Amino acid sequence: MADNGRTGVAIVGLGGAVATTAVGGVEMMKLGTVGTDGLPLADVPGLVPYTSLVFGGWDVQGDDLAKAAHVHRVLDDRQIEAVGSALGGIEPWAAVADPEYCRNARGTNLVAVAALRDRVAHIVEDLRRFRAEQDLDQVVVVNLASTERWPDLTLPALATAEGFEKALDVDDAAITPGMLYAYAAITEHCPYVNFTPSAAADVPALLELAEQRGVPVAGKDGKTGQTMMKTVLAPAFRSRALTVDGWYSTNILGNRDGEILDDPDSLSSKVQTKGSVLDDILGYEVGDHVVRIDYYRPRGDEKEAWDNIDLTGFLGQRMQIKVDFMARDSVLAAPLVLELVRLVVEAQRRGEGGAQEQLGYFFKAPTTRDGRRPEHALHVQERVLREWISAGAA
Amino acid sequence: MADNGRTGVAIVGLGGAVATTAVGGVEMMKLGTVGTDGLPLADVPGLVPYTSLVFGGWDVQGDDLAKAAHVHRVLDDRQIEAVGSALGGIEPWAAVADPEYCRNARGTNLVAVAALRDRVAHIVEDLRRFRAEQDLDQVVVVNLASTERWPDLTLPALATAEGFEKALDVDDAAITPGMLYAYAAITEHCPYVNFTPSAAADVPALLELAEQRGVPVAGKDGKTGQTMMKTVLAPAFRSRALTVDGWYSTNILGNRDGEILDDPDSLSSKVQTKGSVLDDILGYEVGDHVVRIDYYRPRGDEKEAWDNIDLTGFLGQRMQIKVDFMARDSVLAAPLVLELVRLVVEAQRRGEGGAQEQLGYFFKAPTTRDGRRPEHALHVQERVLREWISAGAA
Amino acid sequence: MADNGRTGVAIVGLGGAVATTAVGGVEMMKLGTVGTDGLPLADVPGLVPYTSLVFGGWDVQGDDLAKAAHVHRVLDDRQIEAVGSALGGIEPWAAVADPEYCRNARGTNLVAVAALRDRVAHIVEDLRRFRAEQDLDQVVVVNLASTERWPDLTLPALATAEGFEKALDVDDAAITPGMLYAYAAITEHCPYVNFTPSAAADVPALLELAEQRGVPVAGKDGKTGQTMMKTVLAPAFRSRALTVDGWYSTNILGNRDGEILDDPDSLSSKVQTKGSVLDDILGYEVGDHVVRIDYYRPRGDEKEAWDNIDLTGFLGQRMQIKVDFMARDSVLAAPLVLELVRLVVEAQRRGEGGAQEQLGYFFKAPTTRDGRRPEHALHVQERVLREWISAGAA
Amino acid sequence: MADNGRTGVAIVGLGGAVATTAVGGVEMMKLGTVGTDGLPLADVPGLVPYTSLVFGGWDVQGDDLAKAAHVHRVLDDRQIEAVGSALGGIEPWAAVADPEYCRNARGTNLVAVAALRDRVAHIVEDLRRFRAEQDLDQVVVVNLASTERWPDLTLPALATAEGFEKALDVDDAAITPGMLYAYAAITEHCPYVNFTPSAAADVPALLELAEQRGVPVAGKDGKTGQTMMKTVLAPAFRSRALTVDGWYSTNILGNRDGEILDDPDSLSSKVQTKGSVLDDILGYEVGDHVVRIDYYRPRGDEKEAWDNIDLTGFLGQRMQIKVDFMARDSVLAAPLVLELVRLVVEAQRRGEGGAQEQLGYFFKAPTTRDGRRPEHALHVQERVLREWISAGAA
Ligand SMILES: NC(=O)c1ccc[n+]([C@@H]2O[C@H](COP(=O)([O-])OP(=O)(O)OC[C@H]3O[C@@H](n4cnc5c(N)ncnc54)[C@H](O)[C@@H]3O)[C@@H](O)[C@H]2O)c1
Ligand SMILES: NC(=O)c1ccc[n+]([C@@H]2O[C@H](COP(=O)([O-])OP(=O)(O)OC[C@H]3O[C@@H](n4cnc5c(N)ncnc54)[C@H](O)[C@@H]3O)[C@@H](O)[C@H]2O)c1
Ligand SMILES: NC(=O)c1ccc[n+]([C@@H]2O[C@H](COP(=O)([O-])OP(=O)(O)OC[C@H]3O[C@@H](n4cnc5c(N)ncnc54)[C@H](O)[C@@H]3O)[C@@H](O)[C@H]2O)c1
Ligand SMILES: NC(=O)c1ccc[n+]([C@@H]2O[C@H](COP(=O)([O-])OP(=O)(O)OC[C@H]3O[C@@H](n4cnc5c(N)ncnc54)[C@H](O)[C@@H]3O)[C@@H](O)[C@H]2O)c1
Ligand code: NA
Ligand code: NA
Repeated sequence: MADNGRTGVAIVGLGGAVATTAVGGVEMMKLGTVGTDGLPLADVPGLVPYTSLVFGGWDVQGDDLAKAAHVHRVLDDRQIEAVGSALGGIEPWAAVADPEYCRNARGTNLVAVAALRDRVAHIVEDLRRFRAEQDLDQVVVVNLASTERWPDLTLPALATAEGFEKALDVDDAAITPGMLYAYAAITEHCPYVNFTPSAAADVPALLELAEQRGVPVAGKDGKTGQTMMKTVLAPAFRSRALTVDGWYSTNILGNRDGEILDDPDSLSSKVQTKGSVLDDILGYEVGDHVVRIDYYRPRGDEKEAWDNIDLTGFLGQRMQIKVDFMARDSVLAAPLVLELVRLVVEAQRRGEGGAQEQLGYFFKAPTTRDGRRPEHALHVQERVLREWISAGAA
Repeated sequence: MADNGRTGVAIVGLGGAVATTAVGGVEMMKLGTVGTDGLPLADVPGLVPYTSLVFGGWDVQGDDLAKAAHVHRVLDDRQIEAVGSALGGIEPWAAVADPEYCRNARGTNLVAVAALRDRVAHIVEDLRRFRAEQDLDQVVVVNLASTERWPDLTLPALATAEGFEKALDVDDAAITPGMLYAYAAITEHCPYVNFTPSAAADVPALLELAEQRGVPVAGKDGKTGQTMMKTVLAPAFRSRALTVDGWYSTNILGNRDGEILDDPDSLSSKVQTKGSVLDDILGYEVGDHVVRIDYYRPRGDEKEAWDNIDLTGFLGQRMQIKVDFMARDSVLAAPLVLELVRLVVEAQRRGEGGAQEQLGYFFKAPTTRDGRRPEHALHVQERVLREWISAGAA
Repeated sequence: MADNGRTGVAIVGLGGAVATTAVGGVEMMKLGTVGTDGLPLADVPGLVPYTSLVFGGWDVQGDDLAKAAHVHRVLDDRQIEAVGSALGGIEPWAAVADPEYCRNARGTNLVAVAALRDRVAHIVEDLRRFRAEQDLDQVVVVNLASTERWPDLTLPALATAEGFEKALDVDDAAITPGMLYAYAAITEHCPYVNFTPSAAADVPALLELAEQRGVPVAGKDGKTGQTMMKTVLAPAFRSRALTVDGWYSTNILGNRDGEILDDPDSLSSKVQTKGSVLDDILGYEVGDHVVRIDYYRPRGDEKEAWDNIDLTGFLGQRMQIKVDFMARDSVLAAPLVLELVRLVVEAQRRGEGGAQEQLGYFFKAPTTRDGRRPEHALHVQERVLREWISAGAA
Repeated sequence: MADNGRTGVAIVGLGGAVATTAVGGVEMMKLGTVGTDGLPLADVPGLVPYTSLVFGGWDVQGDDLAKAAHVHRVLDDRQIEAVGSALGGIEPWAAVADPEYCRNARGTNLVAVAALRDRVAHIVEDLRRFRAEQDLDQVVVVNLASTERWPDLTLPALATAEGFEKALDVDDAAITPGMLYAYAAITEHCPYVNFTPSAAADVPALLELAEQRGVPVAGKDGKTGQTMMKTVLAPAFRSRALTVDGWYSTNILGNRDGEILDDPDSLSSKVQTKGSVLDDILGYEVGDHVVRIDYYRPRGDEKEAWDNIDLTGFLGQRMQIKVDFMARDSVLAAPLVLELVRLVVEAQRRGEGGAQEQLGYFFKAPTTRDGRRPEHALHVQERVLREWISAGAA
């Protein structure tokens, strides 16, 4: 089922920790110095090869990716050295951004235009130039930018495709930069992945548009450490009829993403996508589900997630489980981004547009069609994904 | 599909922590003071009701169950008080035991006969008397006795049903007390459950016999805390392509079961049933899988299992997860015992004899037919179980 | 050096978890059913005996202490039963309170008067009646009430004894209920202990007054779990020249104290007293010292404090320590309260008025004379305390 | 009080993880690339400067220290590079060794002679050559070799200096290689430090000899991670009258030291030195003090020590503390070795021979005079050490 051509990946937030890790990882695969650890679908035949991916994208920080990788310290010294010249050759394009929607993200590599229609045109122009210059068969757009504040989804601007078009005309403040990138991608027939907790394409207006245009759209918020664990453990507690009385989760992280989550507006988007997972899996409301995210510099990109779970079992007796998960956030995230790119390309090949529900496996808050509650249990999501993959192979 | 009569449960190790918790729990259900926490199949229609179960059984300790419950301290003070008179009315029958096979289990409530055929006759006699006196429609035998040392499965005595019969005639030392109970159960057409790590019915000779006689047999070693978690987490690591470099597990527990595991012979049975789970799920050999069980009195029955897991992810980067599980062992175990009783009754109703592979969900080392590798992933086991249940309902 | 008479203890917050645990504990000592676990000075001769203490006090909740103990669930069922009738005989006096200073503390057992001078008179009246009715040789006042918001210490009302008197006359809003109790105690020559993070007597005005009147005053904020551990570990890190790069502390607790700390104003008083401990001990500013307190009901009074410590050692290499402390908060606190009562009586016997610096061992934010930085290292505080005790014995 | 000359350090086990870290660290100090993190006495004036130390020594592995450092992976890549040429210039001398006393330590860089007197002569020869070739003012001998099995201290060979001399003459098997190095050091007037759990100089015979010759001797078993924490926490529990019901300690480590502790004989020496610490500090016997050391390769030199502590407090109520300490073992150990070298030089300067009790701060099982119980509380040891240092300065 493969497509043998070149696939472009245009990343919003190209200079970020996850993006540079994904790009650096593909460069190392080209060198043959890393294996397929962390890549869930390495064994699936027919998807576009990792090494056929060509990267570009936007960032408010203009540094080339070698400089960015040095700052993030996800790749180790020897890895940066090995892929340094490849990374050094990639510079982010000028970004569409607005401190109004993401206070802490700062930078000077910005487009000069302010009107929304002009901003869209700028993004479209970038996508076309990228495709032409790199001789690409297709371009996927991936959102890996800093988390934006949560919009009011009931506004008419976000409720219908038509409303969105009108809102663009009048520079409606309901529209965030993240939505502009998503809109541009959809209108340019580029499959779109939203790995962040920002709303972006996950508003009724843009989902409708993606459906109309037949463009695959996947999101939202990559499911990496703590939430992934929740969607593994909670189904087991349900299976064994252990009632969850409370689940306390705290996260400490010291990278730029953590710094941005120090902004309460951005944080609330994040906490929101983490929130309903438990209740949905368990089938009842967990009275005490607390999620904390704290910026703590000594951790750097090595996030630590500590969970305490209180359970009631037979005879009403109480038990406790503590889980401490220590991992580089970007190392968990980057391979999922690569798989998502390969899967939305495959969806497009199959002519399947709109929200890609079968990709819920990758997300904390899977986008669904018609407002359905998403499935959260990891093993169920995995089965759904594998069945979809097999169906295409047949 | 239910059977409305009275079901007897004859427990080997009736005075133990798990057994008294199971019996006490059913008494509380009769009083309506506990709900269905911890009972995975409370919602399944058609199985024999928990409250229709009638308990009896053997123990080397002759104390009535109220005294036993006081010693184990699993039920809390108020619970013991509430069901004390019911428990006080149950006294274990004289047991078949031998320090040769389980050094630390001591007691004086023993049958006087030594020849194996006489011992079997004694057990059979107990089962028949139980059925008659209590007016039971069926009797299930459950092994909840202290762990015996691991036998040499290659001996002819344990290899075939025929060899076993001959070995009984000559008082062959290959046959352990646990096997005598299992043999008696099978020949009396009593469905049999082995919740312990002892071999018991899980030797080729007895599995063959159960198959011949059409008696359902299930085992072995109840999957409660740490191993249950392993069979939940390892499938997720496999799913996300995170390589397990090492998994260090230590258990501290201070109940009688822990004391017996201080005997290296008994311990090795336990560690063995815990051992291959990981490799089977992951599909490769985990180089450093360490399992410790330490007797530590301050814990009492509140076992604590601490795990450290080392993983390799994308770019060869390392991550760690620690899990601390603090739970009363017997509280996790007792409801599973009750479900197993109900399920082997159902299997017998359906005429399904021999090893009950669909019950792997409950065991660390699921008994299989024809030496197949068992499935260990909890969510797969759950699906198999639920499908079997549904098939019967149809 | 002992005083053989009867010592009254008038507690602000008598119906609270710590207070009822302290009172219940003394009752159990009278019955001989508990030993001296948790009482650091049980071996010191000459202090007033625990069992000579007579309790009374104020609370906004009018329930007798047996009812209160049932709510807090610190004493176990059998303990409540054993001392139930003694506790049932103690009912809190009507309290001086104001939601302005502690939003979440609610109750109906309140004095009817509003003017500050009238409120003081009311408290004084209670103290005199208590002394007379119970035939007491002395009365100690202990603040165990809910945490009040932090006052502005630069206001003239709180800066000098004279200013405070004037402020009382004009019902100055700078004065909190906690200060009124402290003022009444000092003017009545009752030694005073502030176990809470509220300012109470720890404002320049009242320290000056205590000094003038020669009344011993001790505070503030009992050092029980996490902060106690900090003042044990940090001196060791300093000793071994391990640099603390960060210390992340989170607390989960589900008792009424935790609920009140859900009020950000009260919380800030608490976090403040916890804050400077590390820097003071280490001699440098810890860049990332984070302290979280979260209300989480499944814990009840069994607080859990989780700490992550990041250290740098030889060759600039990094290390981590995690500490998880699970303890009933009130069980740690109550015996310290009893020791403090005995020690301020001893201070008064010795004629030592004003801030009792030698009692820093018991507090998170020890009150000092002349604005000195307090000593925080537990072992140094212990030596100071033991030397003071010995000096008196000589 | 300083000595401005050159101090030689002759290390038994020079190619080991701790030794190469100590040597590499001093080289980095010479380069000015590391600070004084981890060095408790960096601020003490008058001790020999770290950078005046000159290293040599024995190892059964003949690799130069650059190669050794590569194997141990304690220094990071950039650090090895920076000091590689200095380390590459140091090659261990042929060692005195015997698999009889330390089964797992293997190597080919061995002295050819077998008679004990000849072996001693060999060591003495090495020390004299070292002193002469490097133009040293003094030489300190430090034992950093693999742990030997524990000897029978009641044998006459080890009981008196005279008995030891006779035993040397007859090649008595009671004498281990570690004792030969210690004997040679003492007879050559070289101050001696035993950082290992092996008996070495800590037998009555050799302590007597050191006393007679006026040579300072210090030991035994460096107090780094878990035991250091015990001697910090236990005094605090005692101070607060919290009774320790049990203390469960498990260690996982994957370096060569861990591999050697897989030999039960070596392990028992280690567990022994860790054992009595608690009881000595607390003043009562802790019923359940369990210490586990497990070889677990994924950890490498980054040891992880997990402790569970069970306490009883006021009213007999139970509490728990868990501590997880993750640190490079050698990074904690190496700076202590450097301080010990400087301190025994100072002791010799002061003319203080025999067991150096004031150095107990550094050891798990401090050597004492006349069989006295050692002080274990870290803060008391620190005070003793600081007072001794000050006394010399005066
Ligand atoms: N495990 C994970 O790492 C993980 C998991 C789920 C979601 N996410 C999300 O993925 C996103 C990226 O995470 P990260 O760790 O790489 O963060 P990061 O802060 O390192 O990178 C974000 C990048 O986006 C850039 N940016 C901000 N606004 C922009 C705009 N309007 N246009 C273009 N670029 C813009 C920033 O300059 C920055 O370089 C975040 O939203 C994060 O919440 C990460
Ligand atoms: N979570 C769990 O509790 C759990 C999980 C898996 C397996 N198991 C297994 O279940 C069994 C029971 O556990 P427990 O905690 O109740 O242990 P326990 O020690 O409290 O009870 C075992 C009982 O068996 C009795 N016994 C010993 N030998 C006997 C014999 N030959 N005949 C009759 N009685 C005999 C003992 O006297 C004792 O009363 C153990 O083998 C244990 O390993 C328990
Ligand atoms: N380890 C500990 O438990 C610990 C440690 C340090 C400090 N403290 C402090 O001790 C205090 C008591 O803790 P607790 O757990 O018992 O809390 P609690 O909430 O159980 O008790 C506080 C009591 O004070 C009463 N109260 C409130 N305002 C009052 C007023 N104006 N006058 C009279 N009574 C009033 C409340 O009704 C309540 O009964 C809190 O301030 C807490 O922060 C507790
Ligand atoms: N925190 C710590 O690292 C720590 C703390 C306390 C004690 N110790 C002790 O310090 C010692 C060294 O620890 P390490 O981690 O460096 O171990 P290591 O195994 O890396 O080094 C020991 C070295 O001794 C050598 N050796 C063995 N027998 C010898 C002999 N007879 N003569 C000369 N050399 C010999 C080995 O070849 C090896 O190079 C061990 O005994 C360990 O138990 C270490
Ligand atoms: Na919830
Ligand atoms: Na070591």
